Amino acid sequence: VLRESLERADVVVTIGGLGPTMDDLTRDAIAAAMDDRLERIAEYEAHLREIFSTRKIRWTETIARQADKPTCAEFIENPNGTAPGLVCRKGGKTIVALPGPKNEFDPMAQGPVRKLLAGLGGGVIHSHTLRILGLGESHVEDLVRDLMEAEAPTVAPYAHIGEVHLRITARASSRAEADAIVEPVEREIRNRLGKHVYGMDGTSLEAAILELLTQKGHTLSVAESMTGGELGGRLSAAPGASKAFVGGIIAYSARVKQAILGVDGSVIEREGPVSERVAIEMARGARKRLGSTFALAITGNAGPASDVDGKPVGLVYVALAHESGHVAQEKQYGGDRASIRARATQQALVLLRDHLAERP
Amino acid sequence: VLRESLERADVVVTIGGLGPTMDDLTRDAIAAAMDDRLERIAEYEAHLREIFSTRKIRWTETIARQADKPTCAEFIENPNGTAPGLVCRKGGKTIVALPGPKNEFDPMAQGPVRKLLAGLGGGVIHSHTLRILGLGESHVEDLVRDLMEAEAPTVAPYAHIGEVHLRITARASSRAEADAIVEPVEREIRNRLGKHVYGMDGTSLEAAILELLTQKGHTLSVAESMTGGELGGRLSAAPGASKAFVGGIIAYSARVKQAILGVDGSVIEREGPVSERVAIEMARGARKRLGSTFALAITGNAGPASDVDGKPVGLVYVALAHESGHVAQEKQYGGDRASIRARATQQALVLLRDHLAERP
Repeated sequence: VLRESLERADVVVTIGGLGPTMDDLTRDAIAAAMDDRLERIAEYEAHLREIFSTRKIRWTETIARQADKPTCAEFIENPNGTAPGLVCRKGGKTIVALPGPKNEFDPMAQGPVRKLLAGLGGGVIHSHTLRILGLGESHVEDLVRDLMEAEAPTVAPYAHIGEVHLRITARASSRAEADAIVEPVEREIRNRLGKHVYGMDGTSLEAAILELLTQKGHTLSVAESMTGGELGGRLSAAPGASKAFVGGIIAYSARVKQAILGVDGSVIEREGPVSERVAIEMARGARKRLGSTFALAITGNAGPASDVDGKPVGLVYVALAHESGHVAQEKQYGGDRASIRARATQQALVLLRDHLAERP
Repeated sequence: VLRESLERADVVVTIGGLGPTMDDLTRDAIAAAMDDRLERIAEYEAHLREIFSTRKIRWTETIARQADKPTCAEFIENPNGTAPGLVCRKGGKTIVALPGPKNEFDPMAQGPVRKLLAGLGGGVIHSHTLRILGLGESHVEDLVRDLMEAEAPTVAPYAHIGEVHLRITARASSRAEADAIVEPVEREIRNRLGKHVYGMDGTSLEAAILELLTQKGHTLSVAESMTGGELGGRLSAAPGASKAFVGGIIAYSARVKQAILGVDGSVIEREGPVSERVAIEMARGARKRLGSTFALAITGNAGPASDVDGKPVGLVYVALAHESGHVAQEKQYGGDRASIRARATQQALVLLRDHLAERP
């Protein structure tokens, strides 16, 4: 397949097969396809031995295979693993080999490989991605259809859970020239969609919210039942989250809702743990116990079985407690357990973002 | 590309392009490649209109495109989205079209499409996957190398964060015949790897732990600093988690560690929030406050910047509080923020699993 690909293209990218085991054959395949041979890089083998010794992982001889490369290749550093990537150049052709695990692949592809490809000439393809809340994919398309019919820049919508991304892309001889094509259309889209655009490019919804909170010196806590920590996990994934995110309570059992969040036991009994009233009391309890400006709460039934109190699978309540009161929403989601949890987590963030967007 | 693929294969699977917008062209492409035409299914359009009306999402005419299909096609139900999949059969060839989002693709591929492909005859390819803790990929290979060199069944290792999976696969005319080839090798591997095998196939580490706890009537809580809810999120992702998982405290700020988990402020000041002592006090605090049999705690520095108290990026402490004391571990991880958080979460689960495996 590599030989066939090299006949059709100047640059071929492979994914996977760079590990230490018998079935990791990418290095061997590239050497064969490029009529090259493998050499072992002693310095890299020593580096691998040091890592294994420091981390107290047993060394086996096959691990040293990760220090092999075709003689025409250079290593690409792997920040999240021991298998380096390869850039192999021979006879005017280039093979770039990257490891399969996403956490290893992503930083190598976004960093050195992107730079390498840009350096090959032939111009740049550059995009801005606008991130949109509160409008469905088709509705967004309706509002920008004329812009989507143009060829430079191209405008393409992508649906994600609870948001739509619009990617505006131009091909040009330089980044500056591409920006000059993209930016007027970006401004026009921002004008049409107004407050529905919450951010751009890699800025996640949680990062955008934390940035807003940090600017105003506000803090946030969470109270999670059905999502069990997923909302806190998303918030704390953003670098610098600790400037605004203080923590939360995972109130999976009714006992924790009462004992730590102070939800009234008779309310749980009367309305059930999956109810608007319990969501509101959870948010108020977290705000009070953790001393934060805002608190978000989620309760619901993610399935697969119907809940103890007979509430349907997919029924979710999200609530926000703030300085002057609270607000709550009921949602009925379709889909499986993971999907319902992800949508509920997103909706809690949307509730807070909408509240922040409406404030002066 | 579809035409070229149909020349080479009897069955072609496409991914993506089934949404409602202008650039969702898979339906049109299949109709063109199979010399067919699109028809709109009125019942499905009515179903879509009902969904949009129930969820109060604005209807636009392009949404109805999801009710289009080539006349030779049947719909595949999509449990997590509005775009159905397609099975298109014409002239002895089959195109299966599935949507791109993973949460929509997975259940359709694992369910109806797997069944469809099995029904095409030509035998079955059947695997058992053993899930392994505490041994590196190369070490596992060392222990089963002779089995990996055989052709029936094939044995292949896969590295994941903190675990290795061994997939044992046989091709045969029936599932029962494949099992008969796989099972003796599976038993041999279980003998060689002993307690390092924690589960099989789709059983995640968290699901295996929750199952063990539920069997013994034990409960678990968490106290998370650096991971901010990710451990609770993983535990509660397992269906039926509430039988053993009661909840936890996301103690992201030092104040929450003291106020809710009861960690001694002078200990935080003296040893720093990233310390073995704080991890142990967090676990003990969660166990006491949430009244669970076991509690797991995580504290560490996930970066990207070095911590306030000067601890290096990647330094992590995990701790387990149990009926008769506690146990803690220090780890120094490489990699980026997401990677360090994922490894710490995994290590906390490993700590509990090892404790449970050593008990009578």
